[in-house]
Amino acid sequence: MPGDAARTRTGGRIGDRVERVEDGPLLRGKGKYVGDVDIPGGLYAAFVRSPHAHARIRGIDTAAALRREGVVAVITAAEMARYLTNLRMPLGFPTTALPAGITPYVLTPDEVCFVGEALALVIATSRYAAEDGAGDVQVDYETLPAVGDCRQALDPAAPRVRTEFPDNALTRFTVAYGDCDKAFAQAAHVFQDSLHQHRGGAHPMEGRGVVAEYDELRDTLTVWSSTQMAHELQFTLAELLGVAETRIRVIAPDVGGGFGAKFLIYPEEIAIAAAAFHLRQPVKWIEDRAEHFLCSIQERDQYWDVEVAVDADARVLGIRGRMVHDQGAYTPQGINCPYNAVTGVTGPYVVPNFHVDAVVAQTNKVYTIPVRGAGYPEGAFVMERLLDRIAQGMGLDRAEVRRRNLVTVDKLPYVKPLKQRSGKPITLDTGDYLQSQDTVLRAIDYAGFARRKAEARAQGRHIGIGLANAVKGTGRGPFESASVRISATGHISAATGAMAMGQGLRTAMAQIVADVLHVPVGDVNVLTGDTSAISMGIGGFASRQTVTGGSSMLLAARQVEKKARKVAAHVLKADEQDLELLDGKVRLRGQPEKFVTLAQIARTLRGIPGYDLPPDTGAGLEATVCWEPDAMTYANACHACEVEVDPDTGNVAILRYVALQDCGRLINPLIVEGQIHGGIVHGIGNALFEYMRYDDNAQPLTTTFADYLLPTSTEIPRLELIFTQSPTDANPLGVKGVGEVGTIPVTSAIASAIDDALSDFGIHVTAIPVDPVRLVQQMDEASAA
Amino acid sequence: MPGDAARTRTGGRIGDRVERVEDGPLLRGKGKYVGDVDIPGGLYAAFVRSPHAHARIRGIDTAAALRREGVVAVITAAEMARYLTNLRMPLGFPTTALPAGITPYVLTPDEVCFVGEALALVIATSRYAAEDGAGDVQVDYETLPAVGDCRQALDPAAPRVRTEFPDNALTRFTVAYGDCDKAFAQAAHVFQDSLHQHRGGAHPMEGRGVVAEYDELRDTLTVWSSTQMAHELQFTLAELLGVAETRIRVIAPDVGGGFGAKFLIYPEEIAIAAAAFHLRQPVKWIEDRAEHFLCSIQERDQYWDVEVAVDADARVLGIRGRMVHDQGAYTPQGINCPYNAVTGVTGPYVVPNFHVDAVVAQTNKVYTIPVRGAGYPEGAFVMERLLDRIAQGMGLDRAEVRRRNLVTVDKLPYVKPLKQRSGKPITLDTGDYLQSQDTVLRAIDYAGFARRKAEARAQGRHIGIGLANAVKGTGRGPFESASVRISATGHISAATGAMAMGQGLRTAMAQIVADVLHVPVGDVNVLTGDTSAISMGIGGFASRQTVTGGSSMLLAARQVEKKARKVAAHVLKADEQDLELLDGKVRLRGQPEKFVTLAQIARTLRGIPGYDLPPDTGAGLEATVCWEPDAMTYANACHACEVEVDPDTGNVAILRYVALQDCGRLINPLIVEGQIHGGIVHGIGNALFEYMRYDDNAQPLTTTFADYLLPTSTEIPRLELIFTQSPTDANPLGVKGVGEVGTIPVTSAIASAIDDALSDFGIHVTAIPVDPVRLVQQMDEASAA
Repeated sequence: MPGDAARTRTGGRIGDRVERVEDGPLLRGKGKYVGDVDIPGGLYAAFVRSPHAHARIRGIDTAAALRREGVVAVITAAEMARYLTNLRMPLGFPTTALPAGITPYVLTPDEVCFVGEALALVIATSRYAAEDGAGDVQVDYETLPAVGDCRQALDPAAPRVRTEFPDNALTRFTVAYGDCDKAFAQAAHVFQDSLHQHRGGAHPMEGRGVVAEYDELRDTLTVWSSTQMAHELQFTLAELLGVAETRIRVIAPDVGGGFGAKFLIYPEEIAIAAAAFHLRQPVKWIEDRAEHFLCSIQERDQYWDVEVAVDADARVLGIRGRMVHDQGAYTPQGINCPYNAVTGVTGPYVVPNFHVDAVVAQTNKVYTIPVRGAGYPEGAFVMERLLDRIAQGMGLDRAEVRRRNLVTVDKLPYVKPLKQRSGKPITLDTGDYLQSQDTVLRAIDYAGFARRKAEARAQGRHIGIGLANAVKGTGRGPFESASVRISATGHISAATGAMAMGQGLRTAMAQIVADVLHVPVGDVNVLTGDTSAISMGIGGFASRQTVTGGSSMLLAARQVEKKARKVAAHVLKADEQDLELLDGKVRLRGQPEKFVTLAQIARTLRGIPGYDLPPDTGAGLEATVCWEPDAMTYANACHACEVEVDPDTGNVAILRYVALQDCGRLINPLIVEGQIHGGIVHGIGNALFEYMRYDDNAQPLTTTFADYLLPTSTEIPRLELIFTQSPTDANPLGVKGVGEVGTIPVTSAIASAIDDALSDFGIHVTAIPVDPVRLVQQMDEASAA
Repeated sequence: MPGDAARTRTGGRIGDRVERVEDGPLLRGKGKYVGDVDIPGGLYAAFVRSPHAHARIRGIDTAAALRREGVVAVITAAEMARYLTNLRMPLGFPTTALPAGITPYVLTPDEVCFVGEALALVIATSRYAAEDGAGDVQVDYETLPAVGDCRQALDPAAPRVRTEFPDNALTRFTVAYGDCDKAFAQAAHVFQDSLHQHRGGAHPMEGRGVVAEYDELRDTLTVWSSTQMAHELQFTLAELLGVAETRIRVIAPDVGGGFGAKFLIYPEEIAIAAAAFHLRQPVKWIEDRAEHFLCSIQERDQYWDVEVAVDADARVLGIRGRMVHDQGAYTPQGINCPYNAVTGVTGPYVVPNFHVDAVVAQTNKVYTIPVRGAGYPEGAFVMERLLDRIAQGMGLDRAEVRRRNLVTVDKLPYVKPLKQRSGKPITLDTGDYLQSQDTVLRAIDYAGFARRKAEARAQGRHIGIGLANAVKGTGRGPFESASVRISATGHISAATGAMAMGQGLRTAMAQIVADVLHVPVGDVNVLTGDTSAISMGIGGFASRQTVTGGSSMLLAARQVEKKARKVAAHVLKADEQDLELLDGKVRLRGQPEKFVTLAQIARTLRGIPGYDLPPDTGAGLEATVCWEPDAMTYANACHACEVEVDPDTGNVAILRYVALQDCGRLINPLIVEGQIHGGIVHGIGNALFEYMRYDDNAQPLTTTFADYLLPTSTEIPRLELIFTQSPTDANPLGVKGVGEVGTIPVTSAIASAIDDALSDFGIHVTAIPVDPVRLVQQMDEASAA
């Protein structure tokens, strides 16, 4: 059986290609998602949501809804305010001080500011009745003018996104160092670009969902939620319900993807939990896809006007420009995304002078927070587009331009004159960016491409090659928790505040513990996404979990191992260094019959038999560690691809895709492959397909997967992956996060390849997703010229 | 309001007379006992129990029971064996190696060995149906001869308690030191006594009860049980069900007294949990009082034949003799009770030579384990009776005889040539036994009693005075757990493996935390009796909880305090020693406007706002400690009482009762009063009332409170308590356990007083409970002589 390797003693160590422990249940239909949480006698909820992008609420008539059979309650903002310490959501974790803007309401009381904003909650005995009841609620709206485009929003004459706002600019900030004006004055060449990166969503396969049940027997409100942040949700619920955290248990069961969409604590999570707590009955709400389009977070629009100064050797002297970011109607969590985008422009490149002015504009659209990559893909797109401008303008090879500007390995650690939001300088720690690029170019036969392109062109085909580099800071703090426990029955459990969202976290954590304790991976029961399993925890974002949670798990397992050795030495009257861990036992090296099992050691540390513990060990064969990173560790990637553009339809087909990923130290190649596959596909969606369209009144137009295109398997080529390991000493595991970096260079590499494919037409992609209709127009215009 | 003092800042420190935080809900009828745990749709269980003291099971016919309406399942031993890794209970925690004997079955498969032994379980939709169904189960018994008296059981011709036993002696052991024969050879006087201390029970107001529910959503088997040992039950369930501890949650909700009866993990707890786990339906079983009489543990019978050698000054030279202990039909936990009884004889007295041979005999009666006092009351009764023999025989005052033999304060710490079961020597650490006795004698006007007695005698009344001393080792290891956590909302929780059984543990723990953190007692939410609140834990026995759990709580609270100060110093940019904790804040001394709240500190240690924690603090404002005692600490007591014996009825009325208790350091006088009140009443029951009667075939005869007499408030005089504090350095709190020691001297003091009251008749009490009919007979015989 294929899974058996993982269950053997030798299988399942760090670095092994262990099959995912998650997959057995999932493949047998035994996965348990929030949608599978059915509580007998439970109620169902539906939200009353605004059909207007902007309106004042003059009144709500719930009478008809309450008359409907099956409807148990209709909860408006006024009623909800009685259940909560604050009707407004607290500012999301973790963030620096918010410059302006307001967080969303749990239910909005007076003014709706985007289509889909919730103002009431209908609870009924079936979902049918709940949804019909929501339709029965009569809301008297006074519609107000709305603004959908973030550039237009900044016009002083534009309607206000919210009537109380003095203007629609949430904040303006500048990221600058060096002397940009001087750099541009001394430049041999200056190139400019105007770029648009479009608002998209995260679109996990599983949308959001919440089930809440107050259990009077255990005086516990259990909230199942498809979230990336179980402990944060517990804290937020405790704060808003005004109860102790100990009375609230949050469980994130199997989670069908997050990608940032489940990083936020949402109004719906509070509303459903508050309703269940107040009604003393279970309440369930499962987001439908239309709601996901309307009300789950999206990421951007960003409009960039940038220029780059280079010397005669095409070495970058400076970058300057301005950027407008679309925040949407509320600011639930801060401005991480635009900040990261601006500071992320320089990526793995040397940029001596820099000045970008950013404006964060509010619009009557759903609010935004970071999605996979968290601003870095946007920053990389700006840099890589400019590098292609340089190559094109100076008649240089695109790879050579990058080679001249990449940070060389001798400069590492490379301290940038840029700060992370924590205030610490961005410091590229390990990796070899030039070698990475060279490896990828060899793999895709970049040198031979000119010949291939010529052959194709001779057949009337437009093929092109593109490449892009990226770095991403991974393993963000403040800490992650892990606890390893061997119980008196010998069962091994490993709990962590890190969140399994489908990425294989349980397998990776089990491998780390199994590696230290020399037990089969299948013997380590990993508990994640449950606040009752461990008291502290942060959660899943910023490619942080294996770095921080994995390091904590490693250190906790080592503490347990050390304790086991100490007890074994005491019991066996042996020297600790003569002992080895093998097969769930600590045994005397060379005398395999002299051993104690881990279960026996655990019993000994519980005082069985007799009362006394071995001296100086402390009770319990368990340890909890919350390791804190000093600094982030930077993973680099280089992607290259070949595309073919159909000149008649503008369709872009990806012919080959090669991606190199620096992993620090590999825990499990199988899982990393999955992460990089997913990251690339995510990027392909951004580059070619996903477009969240609004009309001029900020009415969303693409609210189904028929209108909003996700890449499917037919659009994805075989992905050719190359892993390098440049271990870091930024964490005890020596790993780097790989959850996001696979997404970062994708739009850039594809845009570069499209440019190359259409070099005959002099086309330079400036907007993503690339619009095939626009490409055809551009080709037509070029041909006509 | 009376409770308000506890909520003020100044109230609720260690030593304060804080009202019990437990009492509000209990007095308002809001207590939640296992009987109050009702799960909608839950099932009810009744056990099929043997009516015979000894029989072979030839067959069980469940057909009629299964036909009864409402009966869902009938589970026999054969069926139960399929649910469990072992049908036999594991040896109870914590114990030394068992010399012989067997533990009980979860359900007995072939041979019943005491009346009430369970052989099948009927599950039904109501308790009525379950009990009727149990009556429908037809068992084909082959009755076997039974033995009820432990002395007769040792006769080689006696029937075997279990057919497989070679004989009925479970074990024989000797406790001896010095040279007893030489001491007796050199003695000025030798006195002897033959004593019987009768089997009695613990009889908490609330009997046992179990509710078990398997929750598929959370994959957790929750077992509510009225137990003193939640974590031990969790472990035993995990072991017998063959699942990880993490899948089992044990909750001991409000517990209506334990006194040792709930120290054992019982077959019923396993059977109910296994049934619920197997049936996937909640199952409830609440013991009725008849079952408690039949199947809850009892403590002894002990028969002692002892003699004491003294010199011409009445100083004890040696004690020797033999003892037979009635173990009952099984040995669930070892032989703690007889061992403690023998080693406990010498108590606070100097006994240079000692030799007691003990035999532990098995009988066809319910098995025994220690009850409150755990053998020490039995040992003290032997010693004190002998001291009275010396006084009577040598014409000396009883107090003076004790004074000459007590360990004097200059001899402390006094290492006895006796070992605790752990192997460590019994070492009396602090206290002043002579001064304690003098204080009590002054309080009861011992000196003036001769006059009072003469006056009473002149009125035809028989009054007498008695006294007795005791010590008890308290604070047994191996450890107890405690965890103090201040969450990001500012809520303070304090979890411990120590068990609240009605004694006020939550209040004491809250006081310890409140004292360290300078917060109101009411702000500390103490979580006990829940394995989900803390991973490790031992439980309630051996007067250990405030000593061990309290010390862990103190150390955990201090760690939290230290961390809070460190963070506050960082945030306020101040020196740690300039800070003070006050009212939930850490503030700069002399600048009350400069402060951070504990909630703010907790948020800071979670990484809010921003990502970084203050340097060198570690995440989370929480700490867990499992403090381990090096040695037990010995609490002493001296009791004196005046009684009046009615010569016509033999009724013994207690006129006055004065008890001095050494507490080490007092945490809460109100709670200690309750503990000592309860201990004395327990002892009064043993001395005068509680008699568990069996006939010659080991059939129990006293199975209701109409037959088995418990002392009620009308039998109890006002109890006059004196507390002394002789702090010990055996634990960081400086406390001694007070849960049991109040029971130890009671039977001795009352027996002594009865002797004195009936001194005209030369009566010397040799058996407890004192039988008034026998007293009248003795008086009649004496008068006739």
